[in-house]
Amino acid sequence: MRRATIGVLGGGQLGRMLALAGHRLGLWLRFYDRAPDAVAGHVGELQVGEFTDAARLERFAAGLDVVTYEFENVPIDTARHLSRLVAVLPAPIALEQAQDRLREKDLFTRLGIATPPFRDVESRAALDLAVADLGLPAVLKTRRLGYDGKGQAVLRGPAEVDRAWDRLAGSAPLILESLVAFEREVSIIAARSTRGEVAFYPLVENEHRDGILRLSRCPAPRSTAPVERQARDAAAALMAAMDYAGVLTVEFFDVGGRLLANEMAPRVHNSGHWTIDGAATSQFENHLRAILGLPLGDCSPTGHAAMINLIGTHPPLERLAAIPGARVHLYGKEPRPGRKLGHVTIVESDGGVLARRLDEARRSVLPP
Amino acid sequence: MRRATIGVLGGGQLGRMLALAGHRLGLWLRFYDRAPDAVAGHVGELQVGEFTDAARLERFAAGLDVVTYEFENVPIDTARHLSRLVAVLPAPIALEQAQDRLREKDLFTRLGIATPPFRDVESRAALDLAVADLGLPAVLKTRRLGYDGKGQAVLRGPAEVDRAWDRLAGSAPLILESLVAFEREVSIIAARSTRGEVAFYPLVENEHRDGILRLSRCPAPRSTAPVERQARDAAAALMAAMDYAGVLTVEFFDVGGRLLANEMAPRVHNSGHWTIDGAATSQFENHLRAILGLPLGDCSPTGHAAMINLIGTHPPLERLAAIPGARVHLYGKEPRPGRKLGHVTIVESDGGVLARRLDEARRSVLPP
Repeated sequence: MRRATIGVLGGGQLGRMLALAGHRLGLWLRFYDRAPDAVAGHVGELQVGEFTDAARLERFAAGLDVVTYEFENVPIDTARHLSRLVAVLPAPIALEQAQDRLREKDLFTRLGIATPPFRDVESRAALDLAVADLGLPAVLKTRRLGYDGKGQAVLRGPAEVDRAWDRLAGSAPLILESLVAFEREVSIIAARSTRGEVAFYPLVENEHRDGILRLSRCPAPRSTAPVERQARDAAAALMAAMDYAGVLTVEFFDVGGRLLANEMAPRVHNSGHWTIDGAATSQFENHLRAILGLPLGDCSPTGHAAMINLIGTHPPLERLAAIPGARVHLYGKEPRPGRKLGHVTIVESDGGVLARRLDEARRSVLPP
Repeated sequence: MRRATIGVLGGGQLGRMLALAGHRLGLWLRFYDRAPDAVAGHVGELQVGEFTDAARLERFAAGLDVVTYEFENVPIDTARHLSRLVAVLPAPIALEQAQDRLREKDLFTRLGIATPPFRDVESRAALDLAVADLGLPAVLKTRRLGYDGKGQAVLRGPAEVDRAWDRLAGSAPLILESLVAFEREVSIIAARSTRGEVAFYPLVENEHRDGILRLSRCPAPRSTAPVERQARDAAAALMAAMDYAGVLTVEFFDVGGRLLANEMAPRVHNSGHWTIDGAATSQFENHLRAILGLPLGDCSPTGHAAMINLIGTHPPLERLAAIPGARVHLYGKEPRPGRKLGHVTIVESDGGVLARRLDEARRSVLPP
C-alpha cells in the first residue's frame, strides 16, 4: 500500500508535531529547512537547502502528493515555484495575504471582519498623517517578517514617533495600527478541507509576555455564544475567500465582547497545541486531513485544557514529569533565550481542578 | 541539552508507538531489527542486523542510556550480551520467565497467582500421564515462541492426542494446560519504575478470534473491585519478584469472578493501545518513564475506551477517517493475512454512546 507523502516547508516544532500526527495515520512527511539540525528531522525525512535553491526544491518535490508549510515566512517565489510541480496547500495566495500586515488587514476589512484602525505608512510624512488620523497610543509595525513581537514599536506619545521611525524604517514598509485597550486576546483554530468541509475548535484565550505566547486556555473562560460566533464567522469568511485548505488561525482582541481581528496565520498554531491532549482530533491531524481531502476529525474538547509554553529554559524532564496531570512535550531544541522549547498541557474534566493544577504547574515550570 | 537515548530491540508497531511517545518527551530512540523495512524505522533510527551478530549489537549499544525491547522473543543471549554493555530493562530475567510457558507458570504458582492447571510434557509418555492427570479438554502448547495462537493444539478427545503430538513435538519442549471454561479474557497493563514506583491501568476486557486480539475495552465492562484487585496484586507480585522496570502485561481468564493468569508479556501490549487516546499517560510513555527512572504518569482513563485491531486488511484511510469518533492509527505495514496493520480507538464519556459508536465502527472496519 502506497503511503501518501507530504512535503513541509520548514522543520521546526510545528513540523515535528505535524510529523507525529502523520505517523499515527501511516503517512510519510518530508521536510525542507535551511538548518541541518531542524528538529522535525528527528521524526521525519529532512532535506536541507536554501529556499531560493530551485534545484534542491525540485528534488524535494519529487514524489510528493502535496506540499504545505509550518511557518508563514516562506518566500512567495518558493511557494509559487513549487506549486508548478505539486499542489501547495494552503495555496500561495494565503501566504501572500498573511505575510503582509497591510494586505491582511485590507482583506479583513473587505470581508467585513472588524480590525483595529490602521494606516499604510509609506514615508515619514505618511507616519505623521497616520498619527494625526488614528491618534495615540498606536503601534508602528513592519508590514513583513514580524513574529513574536519583533518588528514593532508602541507609540504612547509624540516624542516616541521619531525614535520608532528611526528604528523600524529602512527598506521595510510599515503600517500604523491603533493600540486597542482590549480585555484579552483570543484565537480560533479552524480547518477547511480541499472538499470545502469546515470545522472549528472552540475559542482559545491567550496570554502573551514580551510578545511571546505563554499560556492558552480552551474553552476560553467566560466565552459566550456571540463571541464564539464572531470568531467562527471571521475564520469561515477568510477560508472561503481564499479557497483555503488546511488549518487557519485567527487572533483577535476581545474588546467588551466585540472581537477585532489582529492577525491570521495560515498554518497550525501555538495556541492550538492543547488539541493534542485535549481534543478528539489534534490541529496537526486536522491540517493533514484537510490538505489530503480526508474527512475532518472531531474538534470537540475532551475537557478543560490549559497549555503552558516552555520558553528559553525549562526544568529537567524529571521535574516536568512530576507535575500532577501534566502532559509534557519537548521539541529536542537547544535552550536559548526566547526560544520555544516545549509545552505542558493539563486537561481536566472540572474547570476548578484545572485552575488549581494550572497554578501548581506554572510555579513548577517558571525559572527559579 | 543532551537527550536520553533509548535502544529498542525489535522495530515493529510497538516500537513505532514507543518512538512516537519518546519524541513527545524529546527523547531519541534507536531500533535494532532483522528487517530493513521494520516500521519503527519510519519514526526513529534503525540499525539492521541479526540478533546473534555481536559486533553489530555492540555498535547498536554505543552511546545508549538504556536498552529495552518491544517483543519478548529476543534471544536471551542477545539480552545478556547487551546487559554487559548497557542497562537492559526489563532485566533479562523477565524475558527468560516470559519466553518459557513452564517457567512462567511455575513463577505464577510460586507467587500464589492462580493459573490453569498445567503439566510439563517432556515425552510422549509424559503427555499421556498429563492427559490422565488434568483430564480433557486441554491445550498442548510449545513452551517457547508461541504468539497469536501459534504453536498450540486443543485436545477435546483422546483421538486428538496423537495428532497434536505429531504436529507440535520435535525439538520443542511442550506443556499441557487445562482448557478453562472462562467467561471472558482480561488483561492488566502495569508499570514499575527503576525506583520501585508502581502504577496500574484499569482492567481491560479482550476479545480474540483465531488467537489474535480483535477488540479491547477499558474499563472492562462489569468489572468489580475484587476482580481489579486480583489483577493488580498479581502484577505487583510479579514485578516485585523480578525487580521489574517497565510496562508488564498480564493476561487472565475470568472464571466467575476468579482470575486465572494465562500469560505475561514483559512489554507494552496490544491490549494497552487504547491508552494513547484514552488515558492521561499512554502505556508507551509510561514504559519509557519507568526504564528512565522518571516519575510515572497518571494512568487514569479519560472516558470509556474501545480499541479495534485492523488485521490483514482494512478500508482506505478515507473511510477510516470518516468513522464517527474514531482515532485512527496505521502502522505503515504492507497488508498480509493475520498481520496487525493498525487500530482504531473510540473514547466516549458515556458508556452507552461508546457501545453504539463501537457497533458502527466494527461494521465499518470489517472486510466487506
